[in-house]
Amino acid sequence: KVNGDRLWDSLMEMAKIGPGVAGGNNRQTLTDADKEGRELFKRWCDEAGLEMGVDKMGTMFARREGTDPDALPVYVGSHLDTQPTGGKYDGVLGVLGGLELIRTLNDLDIKTKHPIVVTNWTNEEGTRFAPAMLASGVFAGVHELDWAYDRVDAKGLKFGDELKRIGWVGDEEVGTRKMKAFFELHIEQGPILEAEGKDIGVVTHVQGLWWLQVTLTGKDAHTGSTPMPMRRNAGLGMARMTELVHQIAMSHQPEAVGAIGHCDVYPNSRNVIPGKVVFTIDFRSPRQDVLDAMKARFETEAPKIAEELGLGMEIEVAGHFDPVTFDEGCVTAVRNAAERLGYSHRDIVSGAGHDACWINKIYPTAMVMCPCVDGLSHNEAEDISKEWATAGADVLLHAVVETAEI
Amino acid sequence: KVNGDRLWDSLMEMAKIGPGVAGGNNRQTLTDADKEGRELFKRWCDEAGLEMGVDKMGTMFARREGTDPDALPVYVGSHLDTQPTGGKYDGVLGVLGGLELIRTLNDLDIKTKHPIVVTNWTNEEGTRFAPAMLASGVFAGVHELDWAYDRVDAKGLKFGDELKRIGWVGDEEVGTRKMKAFFELHIEQGPILEAEGKDIGVVTHVQGLWWLQVTLTGKDAHTGSTPMPMRRNAGLGMARMTELVHQIAMSHQPEAVGAIGHCDVYPNSRNVIPGKVVFTIDFRSPRQDVLDAMKARFETEAPKIAEELGLGMEIEVAGHFDPVTFDEGCVTAVRNAAERLGYSHRDIVSGAGHDACWINKIYPTAMVMCPCVDGLSHNEAEDISKEWATAGADVLLHAVVETAEI
Ligand SMILES: NC(=O)NCCC(=O)O
Ligand SMILES: NC(=O)NCCC(=O)O
Repeated sequence: KVNGDRLWDSLMEMAKIGPGVAGGNNRQTLTDADKEGRELFKRWCDEAGLEMGVDKMGTMFARREGTDPDALPVYVGSHLDTQPTGGKYDGVLGVLGGLELIRTLNDLDIKTKHPIVVTNWTNEEGTRFAPAMLASGVFAGVHELDWAYDRVDAKGLKFGDELKRIGWVGDEEVGTRKMKAFFELHIEQGPILEAEGKDIGVVTHVQGLWWLQVTLTGKDAHTGSTPMPMRRNAGLGMARMTELVHQIAMSHQPEAVGAIGHCDVYPNSRNVIPGKVVFTIDFRSPRQDVLDAMKARFETEAPKIAEELGLGMEIEVAGHFDPVTFDEGCVTAVRNAAERLGYSHRDIVSGAGHDACWINKIYPTAMVMCPCVDGLSHNEAEDISKEWATAGADVLLHAVVETAEI
Repeated sequence: KVNGDRLWDSLMEMAKIGPGVAGGNNRQTLTDADKEGRELFKRWCDEAGLEMGVDKMGTMFARREGTDPDALPVYVGSHLDTQPTGGKYDGVLGVLGGLELIRTLNDLDIKTKHPIVVTNWTNEEGTRFAPAMLASGVFAGVHELDWAYDRVDAKGLKFGDELKRIGWVGDEEVGTRKMKAFFELHIEQGPILEAEGKDIGVVTHVQGLWWLQVTLTGKDAHTGSTPMPMRRNAGLGMARMTELVHQIAMSHQPEAVGAIGHCDVYPNSRNVIPGKVVFTIDFRSPRQDVLDAMKARFETEAPKIAEELGLGMEIEVAGHFDPVTFDEGCVTAVRNAAERLGYSHRDIVSGAGHDACWINKIYPTAMVMCPCVDGLSHNEAEDISKEWATAGADVLLHAVVETAEI
């Protein structure tokens, strides 16, 4: 079993970097806070005797050697970047849970046949630079490196330039590493495990996602002196499309969700009718047909809203992955570990996307979930108990050690 | 008659300060660009032999002496501040038209009995610091000076601190000046004069306004893993209220307008359900009963929307004035001037608010309007012809000289 106190202390130590405004974290990818978080993680890896490799996407790979130098490594990990108003556990638990697993093996002087590598994937959150899971996507061959470098944030800064600025462009080509398997520990970010009083979620699937970035173009004009019939109000168009997205998701309950989290209004002045809005829709479903039907219905109905209001409309895919089915062998390893350790568990579908989704495309992959309070995540008040974190890391340890072979 | 070429040259010279991104201007109040615009105007006033006074709100008063030192001055003017993506004429024409009037009198060596004062009112636009027409409102006793100083912009900077920063806190107490009359020349900002081929609008009324700033509080949560029934989506609430505002305005056609120009979404991340939104509604009508009915209907129906979505709601008045009826004598002076000069004209109701609205509360006031292309304003593409500007300044000259007596 892992040392839960040590894991918790490390989580609290990491949470001091990039503090939020309400007890959580703002350690967005490729910021100075991200750089500082990476340095702390590197120091801990050095202290644990791991060898650090960094690829051209800035992803960190900390390796514990196996007894068979030719055996394929087992990978674990998640991400250290956070939302702008994020929690202390989303992503971080998976990285530091992986580190705790190594520390435990070191304490017990246990050698595995296969090396074990703890990973910190760059830009999982996708807030500063869309899409989410960017570095794992390049690793899995879903995106091109150059394309990833060209992603821009709200200030127009490029991913590639910002990675260089914080000094974390590694020399490894992306995606050259081979894996025996990949395991990711993560908080559920949903309400099911807590509601059912389960210690562990054995993640069998992840729902798929479409992120559609919509630009509506109307005409800036005076809110007072422009007669109603002459208006081309892009803000009104966004309002109607927000309702449409909601109605589309509601028509597929309980197998779909949909919302708009990001929107920018121009020029954003009290007495100017918005001449332009840019917003991103997030549609998700565990069912491929539902997922694609939601996108198709939006693409059919939204242009009618735009036309009625005299607005130009552009739709761009800002992120996408199909529903994911994890590797049966890896899933079984997680389930067996929970069973063996005596933790209550259930199979679960992840509502959120994870780096594991992309790695699953190329290597056998599975995930371990632990509960979180009120299902709340992407909120500074995100919370878990030390016991939940410890149980998750225990299951991760056992699934990984079984796979890495003693 | 005024010198139209000189007026136009001055307009173009001023437009070089605080250039926009699309041919217009971004010379928002109390920015460095505003400071630079003030310095240019002061230099021109010095060259015209005027005596500059500045009050504690930073409003500039440039005085041409009359032959009777005890006679009450006639005031003209408007504002030099612009929208973030504003035009070159909104406000500026009224200030530089006033200056051109003085230059013309100087050229012709005409002395008036009453002094004439050209005014540049601080923060007319109300974008950076709500409400609009702030300095003229303090002058008219509608707002307190300390309250005005405490207005904050989107970055949390205070009006009073920013006024000090650009070095334009004057020593005059606000509102101590007495006026015989106030005349404001302004572009229409609406489509009527151009559509009817009229040179001049004789402004008899201004429609009233309610600016309501609404804060909706829901809960930040993950867009993927939070089940639809658990959501408290402040963005959805804003969307429904945007539609409500539109429906309310549409139910009073053609005597009302309504829109939302400003909104901020928190945390504004693609995969976070908005936990908070702040937006400002702009309702206007020339009819007092319609104006107040719109506000009342919003205040009745919006809380139901909030309740249904589990959102907290706060409404704050961010600006307000009742419909305005200008002084009959001043209006007649404007109409007579247009008639005498042979310009086609019609009586008109201003759709936009102006400093003249507040000054009309304390001294006899009227406005002169000239057409603008497509009725477009609060847009960098705002446009007028040199002939329209010249006709407006001519009428201003004649109305003012008649009132100031030769
Ligand atoms: N786990 C997580 O929050 N990932 C961010 C990508 C997503 O929105 O699902
Ligand atoms: N004239 C003008 O645009 N004034 C700004 C205040 C308003 O929104 O009416």
